[in-house]
Amino acid sequence: MEEKYIEIFNYVKSVLSCSAHNMDHVLRVYKISLEIAETEKDVDLDILVPSALLHDIARVKESEDTSGSVDHSVLGAEMAGDFLKSKNYSDEQIDKIKHCIRAHRFRTGNYPESIEAKILFDADKLDAIGAIGVARCLMLSGQHGQRLTNHENMLEYEKNNIVENGRIKDLAEHTPIVEYETKLKKIPSKLYTESAKKMSKGRMELMNNFFETLKDEIKINI
Amino acid sequence: MEEKYIEIFNYVKSVLSCSAHNMDHVLRVYKISLEIAETEKDVDLDILVPSALLHDIARVKESEDTSGSVDHSVLGAEMAGDFLKSKNYSDEQIDKIKHCIRAHRFRTGNYPESIEAKILFDADKLDAIGAIGVARCLMLSGQHGQRLTNHENMLEYEKNNIVENGRIKDLAEHTPIVEYETKLKKIPSKLYTESAKKMSKGRMELMNNFFETLKDEIKINI
Repeated sequence: MEEKYIEIFNYVKSVLSCSAHNMDHVLRVYKISLEIAETEKDVDLDILVPSALLHDIARVKESEDTSGSVDHSVLGAEMAGDFLKSKNYSDEQIDKIKHCIRAHRFRTGNYPESIEAKILFDADKLDAIGAIGVARCLMLSGQHGQRLTNHENMLEYEKNNIVENGRIKDLAEHTPIVEYETKLKKIPSKLYTESAKKMSKGRMELMNNFFETLKDEIKINI
Repeated sequence: MEEKYIEIFNYVKSVLSCSAHNMDHVLRVYKISLEIAETEKDVDLDILVPSALLHDIARVKESEDTSGSVDHSVLGAEMAGDFLKSKNYSDEQIDKIKHCIRAHRFRTGNYPESIEAKILFDADKLDAIGAIGVARCLMLSGQHGQRLTNHENMLEYEKNNIVENGRIKDLAEHTPIVEYETKLKKIPSKLYTESAKKMSKGRMELMNNFFETLKDEIKINI
């Protein structure tokens, strides 16, 4: 990592100190962002690198918040802006970085417009597919005490109105297989850059093969 | 499931009620045991099926025990014996079933001698490899709040003497990649029956490919 970004890196590390998972993810997204940037034109690394390092700084605050009103992409953009202001970044740079952070999230209403925002979005999504995507999905699922599948209860969930767009609303009743079917599968169609689309192919092949084999091994037809 | 085993099934379900994970595993082991039994000679299903259904009944007691002295294969054999005595199983049958349950565990000093014990051992191990093995390993790891890898800290762990046979003794510091490298990889060489060895091939291919790709994606050389 270039010397000039170390200060940002240390700030992120201090904010995310309680979550090694988050920090590991941030470093992977940083690396994938640089990989994608190599094949794209006119990328400003002084926008992309701080955005990649700072994109999840509000993750801890989001998960600590019980009201459900904190969106880490929105709050993270504000926190990043405040931090960078104290580090002599220009207003123009700060606005561009805030846009990247705000637009990195799937569900947010802010879509990536600049090339740096598109690269960060794609890098973040690539880390949710492939072997690493499978691993993150399953580890999170274990953390919430979920079962591999609740397919035998799906009819009942639907009857009780706790299914929304194929997803189970109660986190403890949600499952990694439902996560794959309703969300992870669709990631490649959402990507912006050509190199991310290319990188997604091998990753999706492994992920599809993994989940289809899993369903076969546990004898489930969904 | 044959009518005559339903009573055992319901007993196991009541004992493992707090852990759907355990019950799902039991049913997969039951199914794999029957698959292996089809290709083996002189298998007594009245020994194998009760053993498969009952093999993990002491799992909950083992994990509730803080002293670390409860071995679920030893205690499970005793619990199974007491239950089957009340269900008109003969002493000879009970002894055979207790042997299967006692010998199903990797680390126990009791090795499987009968064909039913060998089948149960193999079925239980097959459920720890393949896509289902990857899933169980990662979900358990998430449940313990582990990171994917702690490779950058390994030297320090070794210095502080918390590594034993390549495994990190502190469960929170243990990782799924270490679990794969030190334990899961070796499973095929421990299997007894020819059909389990055959079934392990495709499963290990997927598992090896998964972990090698994962290490590659997260840029780790172990």
